[in-house]
Amino acid sequence: MGRLGLTLRRIPLQFGVMSKEAPEISPPVKVLEWVGRAKRGSLRLLDQTLLPGETRFMECRDAQAVWEAIRRLAVRGAPAIGVTAAYGMVLAAQGIPDGNDFMTGLEGAAQYLQSSRPTAVNLEWATSRVYRRAQKTISGDFDEIRRAMLEEAGAIHAEDEALCLAIGRHAKALVENCSGVLTHCNAGALATCGIGTATAGMYLARAGGHDFTVYCDETRPLLQGSRLTAWELMRADINVVVIADSMAAQVMREGRVQMVITGADRIAANGDAANKIGTYGLAILAQRHGIPFYIAAPYSTFDLKLKSGQEIPIEQRAGEEITDMFGRRTAPADVKTYAPAFDVTPAELITAIVTDRGVIQPVSDQNVRKVIG
Amino acid sequence: MGRLGLTLRRIPLQFGVMSKEAPEISPPVKVLEWVGRAKRGSLRLLDQTLLPGETRFMECRDAQAVWEAIRRLAVRGAPAIGVTAAYGMVLAAQGIPDGNDFMTGLEGAAQYLQSSRPTAVNLEWATSRVYRRAQKTISGDFDEIRRAMLEEAGAIHAEDEALCLAIGRHAKALVENCSGVLTHCNAGALATCGIGTATAGMYLARAGGHDFTVYCDETRPLLQGSRLTAWELMRADINVVVIADSMAAQVMREGRVQMVITGADRIAANGDAANKIGTYGLAILAQRHGIPFYIAAPYSTFDLKLKSGQEIPIEQRAGEEITDMFGRRTAPADVKTYAPAFDVTPAELITAIVTDRGVIQPVSDQNVRKVIG
Repeated sequence: MGRLGLTLRRIPLQFGVMSKEAPEISPPVKVLEWVGRAKRGSLRLLDQTLLPGETRFMECRDAQAVWEAIRRLAVRGAPAIGVTAAYGMVLAAQGIPDGNDFMTGLEGAAQYLQSSRPTAVNLEWATSRVYRRAQKTISGDFDEIRRAMLEEAGAIHAEDEALCLAIGRHAKALVENCSGVLTHCNAGALATCGIGTATAGMYLARAGGHDFTVYCDETRPLLQGSRLTAWELMRADINVVVIADSMAAQVMREGRVQMVITGADRIAANGDAANKIGTYGLAILAQRHGIPFYIAAPYSTFDLKLKSGQEIPIEQRAGEEITDMFGRRTAPADVKTYAPAFDVTPAELITAIVTDRGVIQPVSDQNVRKVIG
Repeated sequence: MGRLGLTLRRIPLQFGVMSKEAPEISPPVKVLEWVGRAKRGSLRLLDQTLLPGETRFMECRDAQAVWEAIRRLAVRGAPAIGVTAAYGMVLAAQGIPDGNDFMTGLEGAAQYLQSSRPTAVNLEWATSRVYRRAQKTISGDFDEIRRAMLEEAGAIHAEDEALCLAIGRHAKALVENCSGVLTHCNAGALATCGIGTATAGMYLARAGGHDFTVYCDETRPLLQGSRLTAWELMRADINVVVIADSMAAQVMREGRVQMVITGADRIAANGDAANKIGTYGLAILAQRHGIPFYIAAPYSTFDLKLKSGQEIPIEQRAGEEITDMFGRRTAPADVKTYAPAFDVTPAELITAIVTDRGVIQPVSDQNVRKVIG
């Protein structure tokens, strides 16, 4: 263990621009793990709804358990739910009988898993990838197909870890220029299988000895910022200050932060980025205060089929998440609510998008194409 | 009782521009009431910390009880705490012995009551007014002084009711032009002794038959929007939609609201306005979306001694209001917080200030002087 409780070692990376030797750093928490073989194994998930009070893991043994875990946010964050759904395909394949209808069953499973949450593109991307691997595995031995699927899910898992690191290498210098950083929701280790997306540069900067403060928007209604981001950053000895979402403008005005960085759930071809509700407003506030606003996301978050953010479907959540969240009813009975889970930040408000493949700046169709393909 | 459960009657008003006959309308709830005589009476307060679940009143029998009620927000809102503190002076006078030190004791009581919360100017304004009334009552009969003080507190109380109505008459037409209005925190009937400041135009527009929707920011950390504003507006049959604070930008972007209106806790001579944390950010968002941003406040909220908002003291609240508010810990143990209770919206972001004495627009030193004096 290095200082800060982080393991540092040198390993060769195999993705994108980061193919040279680079320091790796362990995430402060392992969000998910496959246990056992393709035919009978299961998926072990950290139940994030219980954080920060309790660190409890749950076992998912079929696709329905995965669907529910994603739906109720036991696992969340675009990259992590992608990996989870990939393993969900393996669990689905366990329950589909050998025979001619196997691929049809898998196709249904992919659609089912994708329906758990509509906004993050990673669900579609990861389930399709495992499905295609099954398609390409020409074999009369269905267990061989199941093994290939597990291998593919494992590859997505390992890749996610490496993508975070690659993003972090690009974002590290940005963080090192700041004494204060503001983030929203959780695009951290808990949202990925690595050191996070928005947090990746923070972990690397801290491991490099940089002292700075991260202001975490608590992120209503589900408090991913105060419950999750604060929790994981504190495990790495990063100085954390939790604020209510409505305090961000004042924090900016007082000069406490020199950058804002968040993750994204889906990014269109023109760079418009869907992320947790509140991100769009933060980007406007950052612009007003002359503070750069960054999005951090791996290539798999881009959905180049969509020309702009207007085409990104926005999930609506239950109003009870606003009115009943704290174990106590906090609004009148029968009051109406409006609860979009995401908003879209237009490219013009994003200073740069930090990806595993490089930094997109300024954010334009052309530069997205150049970096992402 | 008229429709909407509101009592409508014609009474002559005696304040400011509203001295002609005007319809009055009862507030949906009575926040406070003096019970009994000057020498032995007490102050009955609605304990707003229990809303919306429970409507319970408490009795304050001395200045300390008043100080604590203001401090823990059992009563809140700049106008309401002004009236409460005025009655607090009467309670203090009950406990001060007749004699030469009577006025010194009152002076100490005024300072003590003012220390309960630093930002709202009404505390200072109301306690000073009751103190001056005592000073002017030249009498060897200290009970006569106490009676004069109660009379003064009662006058402040009645005036507050009329000020709300006068504000409402100016704001009504603004609301009638909108199908959707956004407000933050509670500048409603619960924050005053009348029909509120920011809400006054809403109550009058609704009583006049206008159909519209009020989007209430829940207003973290203490949820005055979802607990209080939603509750009181629903009692008057106004269509209420509660949102998390971070959803305001998206609500604006979708064209759901055509104006934003909030109260204020203190307004400087140049029109800079301190109000609940989050107001400043809302004003920036409104500007970006081309939506007018209004402040509603009586003349007593202006502090013309202060040249600009930079001189307004900003109360810091305990971090536990963010991390422990609703019977459940929602952040890691020992996490740091930053919890300013207010922010200052610069005059340049305020479309107009609606006062009992008229509308200040555009907001400038000169126009503040012209309307407020």
